[in-house]
Amino acid sequence: MSGVRLRVDVLAARLDGEVEGDGGRSLAGVAGLEDAGPHELSFLANRRYVKNLAGTRAGAVLVGRGQPAAGQTVIRVADPYLALASALRLFRPVPEVRAGVHPTAVVEGFVEGAEVRALAYVGPGAVVGEGTVVYPHAYVGAGARVGRDCTIFPGAVVMDGCMLGDRCVLQPGAVVGGDGFGYATRVGAPAGQVHVKVPQVGRAVLGDDVELGANACVDRGALGDTVVGAGSKLDNLVQVGHGAQLGPDCVLVAYAGVSGSARLGRGVVLAARAGVLGHLELGDGVQVGALSMVTKDVPAGEKRSGIPAIDHATWLRETAGRAIARRRAAPGVSE
Amino acid sequence: MSGVRLRVDVLAARLDGEVEGDGGRSLAGVAGLEDAGPHELSFLANRRYVKNLAGTRAGAVLVGRGQPAAGQTVIRVADPYLALASALRLFRPVPEVRAGVHPTAVVEGFVEGAEVRALAYVGPGAVVGEGTVVYPHAYVGAGARVGRDCTIFPGAVVMDGCMLGDRCVLQPGAVVGGDGFGYATRVGAPAGQVHVKVPQVGRAVLGDDVELGANACVDRGALGDTVVGAGSKLDNLVQVGHGAQLGPDCVLVAYAGVSGSARLGRGVVLAARAGVLGHLELGDGVQVGALSMVTKDVPAGEKRSGIPAIDHATWLRETAGRAIARRRAAPGVSE
Amino acid sequence: MSGVRLRVDVLAARLDGEVEGDGGRSLAGVAGLEDAGPHELSFLANRRYVKNLAGTRAGAVLVGRGQPAAGQTVIRVADPYLALASALRLFRPVPEVRAGVHPTAVVEGFVEGAEVRALAYVGPGAVVGEGTVVYPHAYVGAGARVGRDCTIFPGAVVMDGCMLGDRCVLQPGAVVGGDGFGYATRVGAPAGQVHVKVPQVGRAVLGDDVELGANACVDRGALGDTVVGAGSKLDNLVQVGHGAQLGPDCVLVAYAGVSGSARLGRGVVLAARAGVLGHLELGDGVQVGALSMVTKDVPAGEKRSGIPAIDHATWLRETAGRAIARRRAAPGVSE
Repeated sequence: MSGVRLRVDVLAARLDGEVEGDGGRSLAGVAGLEDAGPHELSFLANRRYVKNLAGTRAGAVLVGRGQPAAGQTVIRVADPYLALASALRLFRPVPEVRAGVHPTAVVEGFVEGAEVRALAYVGPGAVVGEGTVVYPHAYVGAGARVGRDCTIFPGAVVMDGCMLGDRCVLQPGAVVGGDGFGYATRVGAPAGQVHVKVPQVGRAVLGDDVELGANACVDRGALGDTVVGAGSKLDNLVQVGHGAQLGPDCVLVAYAGVSGSARLGRGVVLAARAGVLGHLELGDGVQVGALSMVTKDVPAGEKRSGIPAIDHATWLRETAGRAIARRRAAPGVSE
Repeated sequence: MSGVRLRVDVLAARLDGEVEGDGGRSLAGVAGLEDAGPHELSFLANRRYVKNLAGTRAGAVLVGRGQPAAGQTVIRVADPYLALASALRLFRPVPEVRAGVHPTAVVEGFVEGAEVRALAYVGPGAVVGEGTVVYPHAYVGAGARVGRDCTIFPGAVVMDGCMLGDRCVLQPGAVVGGDGFGYATRVGAPAGQVHVKVPQVGRAVLGDDVELGANACVDRGALGDTVVGAGSKLDNLVQVGHGAQLGPDCVLVAYAGVSGSARLGRGVVLAARAGVLGHLELGDGVQVGALSMVTKDVPAGEKRSGIPAIDHATWLRETAGRAIARRRAAPGVSE
Repeated sequence: MSGVRLRVDVLAARLDGEVEGDGGRSLAGVAGLEDAGPHELSFLANRRYVKNLAGTRAGAVLVGRGQPAAGQTVIRVADPYLALASALRLFRPVPEVRAGVHPTAVVEGFVEGAEVRALAYVGPGAVVGEGTVVYPHAYVGAGARVGRDCTIFPGAVVMDGCMLGDRCVLQPGAVVGGDGFGYATRVGAPAGQVHVKVPQVGRAVLGDDVELGANACVDRGALGDTVVGAGSKLDNLVQVGHGAQLGPDCVLVAYAGVSGSARLGRGVVLAARAGVLGHLELGDGVQVGALSMVTKDVPAGEKRSGIPAIDHATWLRETAGRAIARRRAAPGVSE
């Protein structure tokens, strides 16, 4: 990985874990159970992979407190996946930001302490915070504000006037502040109906620690702001409509979509391709299953699945019921 | 907003509306009912927000002809949302285009009267019309034609040889004229089957007043053209396959997808995530519900929903029937 | 098209076909049955268009061995669509690559024999192979490797350290190697739960002849690699999660999504909007219908459809059964 080497016992101390086995080994990186060699750390966070534990050649394995080991050197921690995140940061420290503007970048705003790479653009009146890296072909529009220690990957766009908190990450091609989809329809025009664009004069505002996946889109508001609350994580190709308000700490998996003016509380989770219609309210901690369509408000803490979405447990029961009926009707069909 | 100030009665006259209340107030901008202050105009276009009318501090409110007021100064108009669009243009005039080419742009085509911003690219033989703005990192390929008064936002792409009418808008990351998904499969090759790319030599052609959302994709045709008719509005992440023909005046909401060679008539509406399989015909005015999959031709004026899509009223009735059955079976479950 | 002219009999010989009719005609291009003129070749590959055969003005038509002709000059071939692909290459030869670096491109890596166009970026340590074209605003990150004869269209991104084989095509806006969607959740923090980013230190690796559609995304792996096997073709807006392994020769149609760590065998086909949940295995030749959600492993050669996905034939039968019941209940409703 990077030349960093750590003894198992030193690493365990940093991760608040306990060693079982050989604490004196030297580790130089991290790999999956099947790929790791004797100088690499591995981890077991998903029961699906318990079967790979016995055969691993890893120098040490991060495991949960209750996990039976199989003779390997293990580091027991409260949460192996969380410990993995920390371990990766130890083995592969983030390179230091080299503040400055590449000669081919075009900077018309304020970027003191930021690293603006080749061919990037920062518009007039924009402010980019210290420690932020703006990659090639990234765009920060006029009057936009990007906080400290953000990463704006290639081709990502922060449209004019929009705002990012600190430590935000925009993966390549993510768009913050494209126009919302707002048209007033003039009926009875000679040609039938005409869609007249409603100027979208609000902003898109991301709190601290928000991450947007590749080619994800958060539209600017029509009048007020579209808000993605602090700590929310949006996967690739997610779409947030104008005036929606999310979070904090929401998780939206790939292709999840939130229509205009919807409100999602704290810690809402939308699985892949889940959609929420416009103007709805989802309370804190709501979870929506993959490929579901939420058509009504959802109280805090509830789970929904289906098209249209219903109580998740009911959906599971109905789905299982159909599967049983099918097997009775045609016992031979594989599924 | 911008320094423009308008008296309520002057504004009402420009919007073909009538004042009830204090026509002499001065307004300086527009905001939602909950946010507006005494020098701002607001509007009521969605019954869901009638409850916010009584408490608004707005200086005046755009309301429909039949809407009971609640003591505020109102401007009565035929269509409040349409009037809002006009009001926003009055308060926030579009900045004038400053024709010229930024020194870091690369222009190999013809851009007289257009504004080509930093780091934009216009290829050899391309023509960009007067009044059009090409943002940083936007690409107009060799031989492409972009009409007058268009806006090509950052990272949007008009591939070589493709065409845009006048007043088109490409939101950031929109792609016009990527290759269609066309492969001929050679079966029985030593390695099983091989997918051989069919060169995509047609164009993508957008009529006047077409808007594409962020990261939307309209593929070029395989042989002939892919056409998006005048006035059609495509939301973020919409996909139009090669050889499809849309519109005019279609509305495709986020993630809606039209497969290759499908034909959509005038004013067709696809709600979010609606999909239309290849080679189908949808007549004028067809409407398709969210998350539906159209697998057959649809006659003009009809509505479809479901997977596969059926008559919308039938789909609604079946969905409601299932909901009733569920409530009978388990009266306690929230939904 | 391009000035190339070919006699029907010469063309037939090159396509391993036999002429019926006038082999002496001169052809100058290719068009659809309805658009083709007397100096153009056309083709019939889809039974849906047999009705257009009789009326075509095409100089010659590529048809299958068993296809009755209707008086036109035809070239009989084993697979008309495959022959079309070859014919298009003959009429429209790919322009030669002009190796060199445009003065406005920024190249910090190795690009000998490649054509790096205006405003493109190639990072330090990156290697771009001979015959590859890097379009304006395309990004090849530090340490990335791009093989020979690839095409990296405008705005496409190859993130740092990622790899492409030979003859790969990235359509505009495609992203290879954005971070995977990996967070460890720390529960019980003062603010409820916090999502801690797990550094994504693996790569995204594309084999030879892979094509990604516009704005498609293939994430880099968390620890190991995400792999798209040789010959696989991914349409616009497709998503491949971290650590997934595909192919070779898979076909993923628009919006198809593969979650993290899933494994797809050789020649797997996912129709539009089909989704595969994480960690699943789909055997060689598996086919999944449009808008389906695969929630279990699928053995080689099987077909799945539905939400959740079931045996395709069963899904078809159930769908047909519902349609019959509907028609009995309401014979008048169009569908």
